[in-house]
Amino acid sequence: MKRILVINGPNLNLLGRREPGIYGSTGMDDCLADLRMRYRDTAEIAYFQSNHEGALIDRLHEVGFDSALTGIVLNAGAYTHTSLALADAIAAIERPVVEVHISNVHSREEIRHRSMISPVCKGVIAGFGLDSYRLGIEALLAME
Amino acid sequence: MKRILVINGPNLNLLGRREPGIYGSTGMDDCLADLRMRYRDTAEIAYFQSNHEGALIDRLHEVGFDSALTGIVLNAGAYTHTSLALADAIAAIERPVVEVHISNVHSREEIRHRSMISPVCKGVIAGFGLDSYRLGIEALLAME
Amino acid sequence: MKRILVINGPNLNLLGRREPGIYGSTGMDDCLADLRMRYRDTAEIAYFQSNHEGALIDRLHEVGFDSALTGIVLNAGAYTHTSLALADAIAAIERPVVEVHISNVHSREEIRHRSMISPVCKGVIAGFGLDSYRLGIEALLAME
Amino acid sequence: MKRILVINGPNLNLLGRREPGIYGSTGMDDCLADLRMRYRDTAEIAYFQSNHEGALIDRLHEVGFDSALTGIVLNAGAYTHTSLALADAIAAIERPVVEVHISNVHSREEIRHRSMISPVCKGVIAGFGLDSYRLGIEALLAME
Amino acid sequence: MKRILVINGPNLNLLGRREPGIYGSTGMDDCLADLRMRYRDTAEIAYFQSNHEGALIDRLHEVGFDSALTGIVLNAGAYTHTSLALADAIAAIERPVVEVHISNVHSREEIRHRSMISPVCKGVIAGFGLDSYRLGIEALLAME
Amino acid sequence: MKRILVINGPNLNLLGRREPGIYGSTGMDDCLADLRMRYRDTAEIAYFQSNHEGALIDRLHEVGFDSALTGIVLNAGAYTHTSLALADAIAAIERPVVEVHISNVHSREEIRHRSMISPVCKGVIAGFGLDSYRLGIEALLAME
Amino acid sequence: MKRILVINGPNLNLLGRREPGIYGSTGMDDCLADLRMRYRDTAEIAYFQSNHEGALIDRLHEVGFDSALTGIVLNAGAYTHTSLALADAIAAIERPVVEVHISNVHSREEIRHRSMISPVCKGVIAGFGLDSYRLGIEALLAME
Amino acid sequence: MKRILVINGPNLNLLGRREPGIYGSTGMDDCLADLRMRYRDTAEIAYFQSNHEGALIDRLHEVGFDSALTGIVLNAGAYTHTSLALADAIAAIERPVVEVHISNVHSREEIRHRSMISPVCKGVIAGFGLDSYRLGIEALLAME
Amino acid sequence: MKRILVINGPNLNLLGRREPGIYGSTGMDDCLADLRMRYRDTAEIAYFQSNHEGALIDRLHEVGFDSALTGIVLNAGAYTHTSLALADAIAAIERPVVEVHISNVHSREEIRHRSMISPVCKGVIAGFGLDSYRLGIEALLAME
Amino acid sequence: MKRILVINGPNLNLLGRREPGIYGSTGMDDCLADLRMRYRDTAEIAYFQSNHEGALIDRLHEVGFDSALTGIVLNAGAYTHTSLALADAIAAIERPVVEVHISNVHSREEIRHRSMISPVCKGVIAGFGLDSYRLGIEALLAME
Amino acid sequence: MKRILVINGPNLNLLGRREPGIYGSTGMDDCLADLRMRYRDTAEIAYFQSNHEGALIDRLHEVGFDSALTGIVLNAGAYTHTSLALADAIAAIERPVVEVHISNVHSREEIRHRSMISPVCKGVIAGFGLDSYRLGIEALLAME
Amino acid sequence: MKRILVINGPNLNLLGRREPGIYGSTGMDDCLADLRMRYRDTAEIAYFQSNHEGALIDRLHEVGFDSALTGIVLNAGAYTHTSLALADAIAAIERPVVEVHISNVHSREEIRHRSMISPVCKGVIAGFGLDSYRLGIEALLAME
Repeated sequence: MKRILVINGPNLNLLGRREPGIYGSTGMDDCLADLRMRYRDTAEIAYFQSNHEGALIDRLHEVGFDSALTGIVLNAGAYTHTSLALADAIAAIERPVVEVHISNVHSREEIRHRSMISPVCKGVIAGFGLDSYRLGIEALLAME
Repeated sequence: MKRILVINGPNLNLLGRREPGIYGSTGMDDCLADLRMRYRDTAEIAYFQSNHEGALIDRLHEVGFDSALTGIVLNAGAYTHTSLALADAIAAIERPVVEVHISNVHSREEIRHRSMISPVCKGVIAGFGLDSYRLGIEALLAME
Repeated sequence: MKRILVINGPNLNLLGRREPGIYGSTGMDDCLADLRMRYRDTAEIAYFQSNHEGALIDRLHEVGFDSALTGIVLNAGAYTHTSLALADAIAAIERPVVEVHISNVHSREEIRHRSMISPVCKGVIAGFGLDSYRLGIEALLAME
Repeated sequence: MKRILVINGPNLNLLGRREPGIYGSTGMDDCLADLRMRYRDTAEIAYFQSNHEGALIDRLHEVGFDSALTGIVLNAGAYTHTSLALADAIAAIERPVVEVHISNVHSREEIRHRSMISPVCKGVIAGFGLDSYRLGIEALLAME
Repeated sequence: MKRILVINGPNLNLLGRREPGIYGSTGMDDCLADLRMRYRDTAEIAYFQSNHEGALIDRLHEVGFDSALTGIVLNAGAYTHTSLALADAIAAIERPVVEVHISNVHSREEIRHRSMISPVCKGVIAGFGLDSYRLGIEALLAME
Repeated sequence: MKRILVINGPNLNLLGRREPGIYGSTGMDDCLADLRMRYRDTAEIAYFQSNHEGALIDRLHEVGFDSALTGIVLNAGAYTHTSLALADAIAAIERPVVEVHISNVHSREEIRHRSMISPVCKGVIAGFGLDSYRLGIEALLAME
Repeated sequence: MKRILVINGPNLNLLGRREPGIYGSTGMDDCLADLRMRYRDTAEIAYFQSNHEGALIDRLHEVGFDSALTGIVLNAGAYTHTSLALADAIAAIERPVVEVHISNVHSREEIRHRSMISPVCKGVIAGFGLDSYRLGIEALLAME
Repeated sequence: MKRILVINGPNLNLLGRREPGIYGSTGMDDCLADLRMRYRDTAEIAYFQSNHEGALIDRLHEVGFDSALTGIVLNAGAYTHTSLALADAIAAIERPVVEVHISNVHSREEIRHRSMISPVCKGVIAGFGLDSYRLGIEALLAME
Repeated sequence: MKRILVINGPNLNLLGRREPGIYGSTGMDDCLADLRMRYRDTAEIAYFQSNHEGALIDRLHEVGFDSALTGIVLNAGAYTHTSLALADAIAAIERPVVEVHISNVHSREEIRHRSMISPVCKGVIAGFGLDSYRLGIEALLAME
Repeated sequence: MKRILVINGPNLNLLGRREPGIYGSTGMDDCLADLRMRYRDTAEIAYFQSNHEGALIDRLHEVGFDSALTGIVLNAGAYTHTSLALADAIAAIERPVVEVHISNVHSREEIRHRSMISPVCKGVIAGFGLDSYRLGIEALLAME
Repeated sequence: MKRILVINGPNLNLLGRREPGIYGSTGMDDCLADLRMRYRDTAEIAYFQSNHEGALIDRLHEVGFDSALTGIVLNAGAYTHTSLALADAIAAIERPVVEVHISNVHSREEIRHRSMISPVCKGVIAGFGLDSYRLGIEALLAME
Repeated sequence: MKRILVINGPNLNLLGRREPGIYGSTGMDDCLADLRMRYRDTAEIAYFQSNHEGALIDRLHEVGFDSALTGIVLNAGAYTHTSLALADAIAAIERPVVEVHISNVHSREEIRHRSMISPVCKGVIAGFGLDSYRLGIEALLAME
């Protein structure tokens, strides 16, 4: 069994409740249940969410040197665009991180076109709704 | 009785003590006491302060869907100019938020001229010293 | 009795008629009537509107050194964003000026995010519809 | 008979006299006479010129809600590039406005490449000498 | 009989089919039929469309030194905003080129506000729907 | 059986041969063979490559209104960053387009951080080597 | 006798009264009296001031083709930095214009570092207090 | 005995472990031990590290008005470049703060060239590896 | 015998005919004849011209891995300044490319100051008229 | 007798010989002779020219604390636009410096619109040909 | 004994005399005497100052390959912000260079926030008054 | 015999010694000996090097009006990118100047992409190592 950690950043605890026009009306609980079902034979999927930039960094440090972890699927929310500290944390750890976004950030406001963390992530997946999380896991599972 | 929440961001716990040339020498305690006295027949005024961006977001989430709350008067301090995550939180919740500033941010350094949160707040009040809080409450009370 | 002057800049003579989606459908006459009623025991409220940048400057000069005037509530409309001459006039006079806007200028086009006059006004109030005028008067009445 | 108003902005009273290398040596009188002759069976062509930004706005307000007017051909001269107030006036009124320029503004200085009013005009015609006015009228007459 | 060439650039072969909210639902065939009918006594109207930047340049070279051609009406589509090579081709040839656009490019995204080819065209006509083509022909026919 | 079209833009015919440090040493033939094998029960995978911007647009037009096509996986290569015409083509057609990149474009030169086509694609996948194509197909197959 | 016209733009009617730290405490009346005394044998000095951009342009048109006028000393105040229309007026007329400023505009805010009118004036004199006017007259008298 | 507080910001808990090519392979524990040994007769050296922006601000507030503290050596890590709130905290307190960096931030990415906190610190020391901390203490001890 | 390929980009087929003030009045035929005569004992000189960005890329691919070719002299015309795809093609192939320009691109418009392809070419030669081609060949012949 | 020093910067030794279209054909010798004749009863006029930035600074230091010197007329040539060191020298000395230019720098290339030294000079005089030097002396003589 | 060279750039010969509010009132002679006394057992301290950019480069070349020199403490004054040639000289030599500044350059004008030489220096020390020189020597002495 | 002057700017005296990865390991002496040998029948080659911007300008003035000089090959080193004074000197003299660079400046840091002197040089040659000097001489010898 592989191990994957899904990390959600600020305001993503409101999924299903927040701006459904942009983020859809399914909550993260359903999404995680689906993913765990789909990958029940392949991978264990842990989950962490915080609105605190520092707590996200703390968590990346805790898991980031654990060679038993296949990798991290990270939706950093708005911190994607403002947090150099988060980028430094990703660069500092050893496990691969895949950046995901629910919405197509490039069709939204200018500030969401620049990602601080993309250069230090393995890759980026954006715009597929909650399916972005599945694609991020797919990408991690395919890496050696 | 209406209910109003006043939220103060980073460094505003030092009011009365910090750079009195810019922020005046009255502390937030006196200010709140005055406001509660003035609106004792109209509104209950709660108060929250934190230097943590994440804690401010957490609090907005907790109160932001409570239809018994008339609205929030928010002085986000320096996070006004750097926190897209806070802006996302304001956009995500349902209660109206009024942005207030003690000083006239537009006559200070360039970086304080841009507000990340203004586009998602109902309105902005800046430059009236501690009276900005009262005007923010006035604005909320006049909204339907 | 205190004395307040409300000044409206270009296109604000069309209030109630112009782009109601942005500016609402109440005209300035009703708004002034309400304000005069509300403050009938406290303040006399004079009014001036012009589409001419020069006429706004002329008026500020005429009243700006009159110590019997409590202050000026100024909605400079589009000149807010383009008129350095108006800013110079405000800086030159002695009576306090409060900048007000009906709409939340920060959620509109980029060019409306920059105000030439904010640095020389006492404070700024934006986004509360016609209630912005009342809040401007409140702010002036509370100044010493 | 349709009714068209041609409005000229600052310095265009000097046409025929001012920088003939750029603007040609025919004056506006001859141009208007030609246009009135050409459209004598179709449209009445009124004319207004002012060097005052405010006067141009005043005029747009006066005629802009008159449903008997087919539309306005506006050469705003240098105000094209600096006047947000003029743009607001055009957006506020109900009659269509066609922006015209005698010279090809795009082959001149950088500042003349940006038009404040284009986004709120029906369309733009530039670079055809005085024939730009005729083309503007043609465009208005073809609109429903 | 005069001779006019109408050239359409990328994606304009989809006219009537592509984003009707912006470009209308009439196709180019109907438009050309109307124009040929209207100018049947004055001008022959040829037509060329390509999605290839190089093919547009090739065609301009082929016809651009033919003194029997009155001029070219060019809607360069998106190449308007990105093709310096097209601008060089227009500058290199001898026949006059009139730049036209169906939509008002100035009220669309920022990148469509800058035209690479305007400085080397005789003039620009934008925003009148398919009538822009007629106005472009009018402009060419009026040139000496 | 679903139908998918993979389109590759300029220089991607050199895959396996060109800068292996960035693009890897597997050619597109092997990649397509793998994909066709993997999805042999689900989808037919067609392929098109061209170094010509116009040819890419032509192809998008040809297939873009064919309701039997599930969607398009597009690696537009360098045109991603310079071609507004390609973006217009994607916006004009009806079939969904997923933007993919082999390398993590965000960790390369500045000019590769901006994508002209992202705003009109369904989503973006970048940085997973040739696996990006598989993820793009996965994304299309999951769409309704 | 030569003839010189001194023109003052917005807010300069307040000289001696407005921000004496920047503009000094001598009014324009004293300044003009001194100048007329000094040049009583050489030149007649006329004076015009307005806060209206349009009125300044009108005046430049009225006097600008009068060959009996030696030239114009123009302190355009804040319009120096925002008025392209004024620049066009100066370019359009035939009499030479010398741009003067009381304060050293280059040691003030950024926006005052750019002059719209400098490129079309004969020369620029800034920073010598009211003596700038005398130097402007000196410059004009020395021109052929 | 003097008292010094060394504060480390985000990701600096990983020192010795994180990107040794940039930050070296000595951990903070060894560094502090060396410093305490070296200054055992002169100064007591306290230490605080957090990945939380708010926690760093809280700590600065706690110690910043304590006149028994000689000063603070602050390596704010990535918050150096993004945190206006931290800058405000430094400006608000009374004890001097010296900004230090292990790496030469000016030879790294553009975003690390700008420091939000430099203007409010006493001085800056960057690029000397862990010796930067010693130099920071030296600088504090030499201040009166 | 060495082998050299000279490639000309868009509009260079018009040499001798196009804007002789900038490009001179000698055509490419005469230039090639001179070069072939001069180098008849040293090098065979092939020639290719196209107005199509894609055709230029195709040709670079065809010849770019041929070890019998000494190198390529490329005048990419306007694509120099806009084509990242061409730059990618040059980076992808193995034969050296020398960038040449007839005119001194740095004394022309701003957009011609930036070259997309310079960073991936061996060197740049600009401003010597048609002699730039000879200098490019000289440079290639001197490379080992 | 007052004492004035005229300092000329780089390339001004070529006056009368260099680009006469911009700088005129009179040399500095004639200019100085005229000035010394004109002010023979009022002021002694010394002169220094160098093409070396350091030599200009050295000279400013030598004379800049000499209370017998009325002031310095400085035409810093191209160093005006690039030398912060020269600006620092002017700020460091005690004698007033007047910045002069022969040509109207504002009607030339963009880079000549910005002066590094204007903020630290008493005032600026530009565009009056060699008469600019006389006006500079006039300005100095009128200062107290 | 180690050997250190202290180099001061333009205007630093005026230390103690120039703008004491920024640079203090102690001259460089006293500063050097203090340093030589303090390090009399450890290091010989040579000194060089020039206002000439070229002379500073010449000196760096002379000493920069001398392996007996421990390193250079360089306060390049204003050349810090404008001299790429100085940066090239530092990159070209073999001895380490430490950049120092007396004032906190980051709290002064924008242009002083960018250092051309920081990327090629070992490290930077700024804002500690004359103590910056001592800290620079400390840093050099601690390097291996 | 023709006469050529080769001028080298700052740090080029270190050629062969300085950063061999960028500039190669051959010194200028060998290079000049090769050139003089190659052109011994055609041209005399003089040489001048200085690290002083002013000395380079002085030399250009000395030789720049000498009609016996065929021209100047100038490698201005870092002054290429910062010295407007050098550009003015080149524009002022009569002999042609060819700008050369050893390295391909366009593939290095951003600041080296802009040349101040290119617009006033006859042409530019960059990136061919020391062979750039030979190509520069070739270019001069071919000019009339």
